[in-house]
Amino acid sequence: MENSFVLKGNVCYSISPGELALAANSYLVCEEGLCAGVFQELPEQYRRLPLEDCTGKMILPGLVDLHVHAPQYTFRCLGMDMELIEWLSHYAFPEEAKYSDLIYAEKAYGSFVEDLRRGPNTRAAVFATCHVPASLLLMDLLEASGLVTLVGKVNMDRNSHPDLQEADARTSIRDTEDWVSRALKEKAYRNTEPILTPRFIPSCSDDLMVGLKEIQRKYGLPLQSHLSENKGEIAWVRELCPAAANYSAAYDHFGLFGGEGTPTIMAHCVWMEEEELELMEARRVFVAHCPQSNMNLASGIAPIRRFLNRGIPVGLGSDVAGGCHTSIFRAMSDAIQVSKLYWRLLDQQAAPLTIEEAFYLGTKGGGAFFGKVGSFLPSYEFDALVIDDSGLRAPYDLSLSQRLARIIYQPDRCAIERKFVRGRDILRIDS
Amino acid sequence: MENSFVLKGNVCYSISPGELALAANSYLVCEEGLCAGVFQELPEQYRRLPLEDCTGKMILPGLVDLHVHAPQYTFRCLGMDMELIEWLSHYAFPEEAKYSDLIYAEKAYGSFVEDLRRGPNTRAAVFATCHVPASLLLMDLLEASGLVTLVGKVNMDRNSHPDLQEADARTSIRDTEDWVSRALKEKAYRNTEPILTPRFIPSCSDDLMVGLKEIQRKYGLPLQSHLSENKGEIAWVRELCPAAANYSAAYDHFGLFGGEGTPTIMAHCVWMEEEELELMEARRVFVAHCPQSNMNLASGIAPIRRFLNRGIPVGLGSDVAGGCHTSIFRAMSDAIQVSKLYWRLLDQQAAPLTIEEAFYLGTKGGGAFFGKVGSFLPSYEFDALVIDDSGLRAPYDLSLSQRLARIIYQPDRCAIERKFVRGRDILRIDS
Repeated sequence: MENSFVLKGNVCYSISPGELALAANSYLVCEEGLCAGVFQELPEQYRRLPLEDCTGKMILPGLVDLHVHAPQYTFRCLGMDMELIEWLSHYAFPEEAKYSDLIYAEKAYGSFVEDLRRGPNTRAAVFATCHVPASLLLMDLLEASGLVTLVGKVNMDRNSHPDLQEADARTSIRDTEDWVSRALKEKAYRNTEPILTPRFIPSCSDDLMVGLKEIQRKYGLPLQSHLSENKGEIAWVRELCPAAANYSAAYDHFGLFGGEGTPTIMAHCVWMEEEELELMEARRVFVAHCPQSNMNLASGIAPIRRFLNRGIPVGLGSDVAGGCHTSIFRAMSDAIQVSKLYWRLLDQQAAPLTIEEAFYLGTKGGGAFFGKVGSFLPSYEFDALVIDDSGLRAPYDLSLSQRLARIIYQPDRCAIERKFVRGRDILRIDS
Repeated sequence: MENSFVLKGNVCYSISPGELALAANSYLVCEEGLCAGVFQELPEQYRRLPLEDCTGKMILPGLVDLHVHAPQYTFRCLGMDMELIEWLSHYAFPEEAKYSDLIYAEKAYGSFVEDLRRGPNTRAAVFATCHVPASLLLMDLLEASGLVTLVGKVNMDRNSHPDLQEADARTSIRDTEDWVSRALKEKAYRNTEPILTPRFIPSCSDDLMVGLKEIQRKYGLPLQSHLSENKGEIAWVRELCPAAANYSAAYDHFGLFGGEGTPTIMAHCVWMEEEELELMEARRVFVAHCPQSNMNLASGIAPIRRFLNRGIPVGLGSDVAGGCHTSIFRAMSDAIQVSKLYWRLLDQQAAPLTIEEAFYLGTKGGGAFFGKVGSFLPSYEFDALVIDDSGLRAPYDLSLSQRLARIIYQPDRCAIERKFVRGRDILRIDS
């Protein structure tokens, strides 16, 4: 059987936000790319499968990045001296304009994809730019990497940089349909799918939003966008959409706010009204929580405990280049840290995130957007990391949960030795 | 001349909080362990010195950690689900109690010192435990590492863990004087000095504080302690010292709050009254700002802009194991990030820290506690890092300030190739 094997090692995965499974020195079975279970003793029927002995190593699910801007990778760590709207026009838009040049795009996206391939994330929901050729190039590179991704050609036909903005709604819609049909038919990727990506309300005219809804209906596509990141942005949306009760309603007006059959990710959700939470809950809209970006751009702290209490689905996002780090391990520790400040400074009813909860958000929580992903429960897709954490030594024996905590806070002192996506080791593609 | 040489490369250093010097492809001269200047063309009188060509590399001052607990290194990243007082009794005190065993201490301190030696910090103000033999052992190891440090045997004679607490004030004072005189006379270290270290007001009886003041007078020692980290702690100090107007006054009552000839570091300073700032300013008390620890233990955010506006001296602290990371690069980016949240959530008059300011705090700002340290201005002690940042590539040329920003946010993607302390490369000690 292709993609069927057994790993032996210390297996850690989330069952629910509060429940972490820790199986020391156990057998993790991959059967045709799916997880068949975790066992203390290897059941008879799997004994004929190839066994890889990773004794002493940690085996975790691959991490899931629910929000990352591929073209912004080139200026990560730079220009974080502004708030969102100014930052977009000053840094992000001029950089994204460069991706009309395919030679630049190949170089820049090449570095981004290689970083992602070597890091701990196995899945990502990715913003490209508004350029069709460069967006398809990015999808080609991601497909070749073995990662599983949703990639969006961005829509933006107003209030943007003159070198970047699309000519009008008609052009944007035509290009989007061209891109979608090429991605789905001509390219026929195995691991890379298109996701509709209106940048955010200020960048998208009403006509564009209407057209995107039509494309969504026609192709049954998921959607990703931004919501309530920054106070200035929210005030701007109020001006642009005076009829909408709030920012969420401005999307909902066009039928672009989740619901049955239209899986939707909204990044940030920092400043949310109670009615918006009700709508998100009803529509099963995913929150992409991007704690570091929300610090770097001085946006604030998203009320994650409120989302979790309501059962709103939440995952983590690196939001490169609002965030500096592609690794979702970093997003886990950032999420815990800012949740403690939220509790301390804003709301003592909002208990800080535990390490188990943060690990859940960065694996099974975000993974749910991709299906049965981000855990080692039976029939989950087999995304797994084998991690050598011997660099994080202690003068006493560490428990598995302590070792997991160290990996989360100090991933750079660990080595990712194997990285399986859908049962395939993507670190060995180039070897 | 011993310790005299020239480095050629891209030299970056702080002149003041707002002024960064960036000298591309320049000559940095070390003369007998001191910085002789940075030059575009090498002056005639230095041309006979050995020249090391580091063209293309970044050359930065060594970083300064103003607050770190050496014995807590063993449990970094663990047990951060509590606030300060509970965390101390549950995690920190039981771990510190282990250092009565010199075999454990050697193993544990060995890892800590090796981590420090390989990292970017060249100076540190270090808390040990209350044990004299283990504190001297730590000093021996630090001395052998080539780092320059101030190390404190901790005083704590009340409200602590039974296995750790000193028997009474007399014992604590006797042990401290024993330790000080052995460190100064018997050991006669070149790079390692004792610093008085009453843990914090709740751990130290009045008699102990009186005795420490006498030792300070007799030996002319600097002092380090903790101040106003956590709201529960502050309330406790108010109960313990009802006569003191505030936490600072509780130290000042014993003459242990800075002033001429008694250099003092107070770690944290999160929740400060205006009168305390006045006193700190008058007494030139150094603030050790520990942003990550203040997140991890849900303490809050220190008002660094208020300190800087008053000209209170500020440096950065890792506060391992309240903080997870020994590197002061991490403290720089954490300091910027929390200052943005402070501005956004608490006080829009308190402008966020710039990257230049954070770099200053982690070099020249904290370095001032050690003398002329943390910069490449003439006659500063020659602490320097040669950094290969080629792992942080971009598809366009980065300016030196952009490269510096990347190093600060992503130090783990860089390699420290040379690390000079007082003109001596301490990475080559073992080679």
